[in-house]
Amino acid sequence: MAKEITSRAENYSQWYNDLVVKADLADNSAVRGCMVIKPYGFAIWEKIRDQLDKMFKETGHVNAYFPLFIPKSFFSKEASHVEGFAKECAIVTHYRLKNDPNGKGVIVDEDAKLEEELIVRPTSETIIWNTYRGWIQSYRDLPILINQWANVVRWEMRTRLFLRTAEFLWQEGHTAHATEQEALDETMKMINVYSDFVEQYMAVPVLRGYKTANERFAGAIDTYCIEALMQDGKALQSGTSHFLGQNFAKAFDVKFTNKEGVQEYVWATSWGVSTRLMGALIMAHSDDNGLVLPPKLAPIQVVIVPIYNKPEQLQLISETVLPLKKQLESQGISVKFDDRDNYKPGFKFAEHELRGVPVRIAIGPRDLENRTVEIARRDTLEKKVYPVDQIITVVAELLEDIQKNIYKKAFDFRTNNTFKTDSYEEFKQILDDKGGFILAHWDGTEETELLIKEETKATIRCIPFDAIEEHGKCIRTGKPSNKRVIFARSY
Amino acid sequence: MAKEITSRAENYSQWYNDLVVKADLADNSAVRGCMVIKPYGFAIWEKIRDQLDKMFKETGHVNAYFPLFIPKSFFSKEASHVEGFAKECAIVTHYRLKNDPNGKGVIVDEDAKLEEELIVRPTSETIIWNTYRGWIQSYRDLPILINQWANVVRWEMRTRLFLRTAEFLWQEGHTAHATEQEALDETMKMINVYSDFVEQYMAVPVLRGYKTANERFAGAIDTYCIEALMQDGKALQSGTSHFLGQNFAKAFDVKFTNKEGVQEYVWATSWGVSTRLMGALIMAHSDDNGLVLPPKLAPIQVVIVPIYNKPEQLQLISETVLPLKKQLESQGISVKFDDRDNYKPGFKFAEHELRGVPVRIAIGPRDLENRTVEIARRDTLEKKVYPVDQIITVVAELLEDIQKNIYKKAFDFRTNNTFKTDSYEEFKQILDDKGGFILAHWDGTEETELLIKEETKATIRCIPFDAIEEHGKCIRTGKPSNKRVIFARSY
Repeated sequence: MAKEITSRAENYSQWYNDLVVKADLADNSAVRGCMVIKPYGFAIWEKIRDQLDKMFKETGHVNAYFPLFIPKSFFSKEASHVEGFAKECAIVTHYRLKNDPNGKGVIVDEDAKLEEELIVRPTSETIIWNTYRGWIQSYRDLPILINQWANVVRWEMRTRLFLRTAEFLWQEGHTAHATEQEALDETMKMINVYSDFVEQYMAVPVLRGYKTANERFAGAIDTYCIEALMQDGKALQSGTSHFLGQNFAKAFDVKFTNKEGVQEYVWATSWGVSTRLMGALIMAHSDDNGLVLPPKLAPIQVVIVPIYNKPEQLQLISETVLPLKKQLESQGISVKFDDRDNYKPGFKFAEHELRGVPVRIAIGPRDLENRTVEIARRDTLEKKVYPVDQIITVVAELLEDIQKNIYKKAFDFRTNNTFKTDSYEEFKQILDDKGGFILAHWDGTEETELLIKEETKATIRCIPFDAIEEHGKCIRTGKPSNKRVIFARSY
Repeated sequence: MAKEITSRAENYSQWYNDLVVKADLADNSAVRGCMVIKPYGFAIWEKIRDQLDKMFKETGHVNAYFPLFIPKSFFSKEASHVEGFAKECAIVTHYRLKNDPNGKGVIVDEDAKLEEELIVRPTSETIIWNTYRGWIQSYRDLPILINQWANVVRWEMRTRLFLRTAEFLWQEGHTAHATEQEALDETMKMINVYSDFVEQYMAVPVLRGYKTANERFAGAIDTYCIEALMQDGKALQSGTSHFLGQNFAKAFDVKFTNKEGVQEYVWATSWGVSTRLMGALIMAHSDDNGLVLPPKLAPIQVVIVPIYNKPEQLQLISETVLPLKKQLESQGISVKFDDRDNYKPGFKFAEHELRGVPVRIAIGPRDLENRTVEIARRDTLEKKVYPVDQIITVVAELLEDIQKNIYKKAFDFRTNNTFKTDSYEEFKQILDDKGGFILAHWDGTEETELLIKEETKATIRCIPFDAIEEHGKCIRTGKPSNKRVIFARSY
């Protein structure tokens, strides 16, 4: 089974696609650019969603739901927003079909044309701020700390499963505040929630920083982001948090009376992560045998595979395994006993490896006699024999160790693929040879940023929050610079 | 606050709308027919969703996600399905906007017309069965037991918050089976999951039965339903489960090789409940003071309101309340300590009553001295004083008792509003006087069913699973009938 996956060395992009499809994570659909998220992929997404939702609630947020459709005119209200979003989108123009008078099937009923076209939301700032106008009168109504889990549509021309699809699932937080400082604090708080989640649960280290003006969200004053490094040396933006200032409040006339009785525009933030995180999760850890999942997000953490020839042997194995399974589950560990009798153990091993199950326990008649089992860990593929009565402790420790180990592996990979250079020649050389993050000086202008992008396909991923002040010269123009920024080619 | 709600006696329909809006459950949006589900309403929906999701998983189902859009041609593939669904729907015809050359704003780019229009899903049988064709080859691939939580759009002309909206949230189960019997069993299993949920969690008694041919889901061989009775004597269909036979398998050419090596079409079911359940929940229990929520679905089960004049008193009250709150929470009870200092206790009482918080605890300086609190239950509005050290036991018992009591109240209401008649005059009289469920004989024909509907606005809600065989005469035509069916006017 695992043999069907193209190796990373052969074709990284094909390897990714093979993995997504063959590990049953997602599939292309009959609708251009829209994916089907298969049960196994969705189970991982549910774990991501549930954990993030918990973290949002712990930081004081509540969920709500706003309409899928946005009136076309709303997009023109915030000048820069329309440039960034309303162009490539799904447009609803009619509301009825009728039987085709000339033959079979149905056709659009031209009599049922909408007065104003509706856009399938690419993001919801406009409809939400139009709603907030009715909810906010006084400082007592603030802050509003709302999140929404939803599907959104952006008409992408080149799509890739999870990484870039026309429809995708995401969450979008939309908060309203009485003061600039409170909105700025919220923007920072949420980028930190994202980086904590991605590092601690996905086991993917990220850089946190500011986007350049050029890479900002359309309508934002400032965009904070987290950037992860994939195994092919390309960066993947994994989450963004936007300080929107009073832009949307002004566009939708949302004012409040402050404690002094004076009318002011409301301050805003928005922040989101999407099913794109699935792409990051897959690409950061997996290998040529298949997925490698962090235990904290694996739908099945432990699989137990019985090795037997006769039904009586399976019976005996089950008698040992079932109480063990129960015991593990009582510790909050998810366990699958794979006793399907139409597949051989070798097939099952390959399948669970492909699907990234962190720990595999194999047990056969000889193990029963010796009261032992063989335990294999997915990250290193190591196998060891343990006494049955140590399983509970060993498995719990292993799960923790795998979580730590794959983070460390990804962290070391990033360290080994982060470069500092002051030479544009070397800069281009690094990008062509292995990619990675490059710390380099930049003169702070949009022109230079675009020039470098044009010449090297690398963009400024972020200006790190913790960038050190140092005098230097822009790698492209030689003009003065006072800190290094992070360049990379990206997804 | 509660005074602003129209009473049920005055105008039931306005009462419902006032409740939904003023208890902060939902609101109309800028998009015709689409609602905004506000945080408090969404918190109730999350409880409904999480419990149902748990019950689906316990019965072997997994979640997945299929595209929002469905190619227009898919709807014509199943003949009766197109009649029922593809007519009033949102149709995407274009995928790009451009700046209006004649002025401000954006217009549809006519160059970006889709070759085939896309329908925003009104239900997903077609796109899912088109996908299943690629997933099913052999009996080994069966059953497929998938559920999806999603938004759907049906272009309703008359909309009412939660009860009938253009966009709504729902879950749709879509299962595939090797045999007819297995699919029939699944259809029944799921209507039972629904009735268990609605009765045990929503505290709303339901009738379970078959829909008549006329009221069946478009494309189904048989539709099972649960029907609840609202306080105004109208029925509300609360969930349906459909046996689809091989209709969709034939329409989308989904075959499998059975154990004998013979190719067969796959058997199907689908089943769903939606945010409509919110409407049933609100209408079944609430009163002229506001919402009455069953404790099992209340986002806040207990609210504690301090009564004080001076900050020192609040301080002392908090010292007693906070450990209590913690203790209640450790029992899995959700508690809010409403210490907002810009609102008076009376205002808070009315607000929590309006929002249906099951149990309210009030505590003031005199209570502190006496080591007592006043506990009020929302369902009966009874108040009693208890010693502080009994709170944990009392609250836990109260929550259980309220859950039982509101179910009993709804059950008794239904009993008192269920009638049996053999006279068409009396039938009409009952409908006009008070509504309710009417058990009457029907000759089994579609014509008579439609005639009765035309003459009385009552429809056959269901043929109960437990209908007793008895000889009788159709209430309208006098033709022979062998069991009574349930008539009612409905939402």
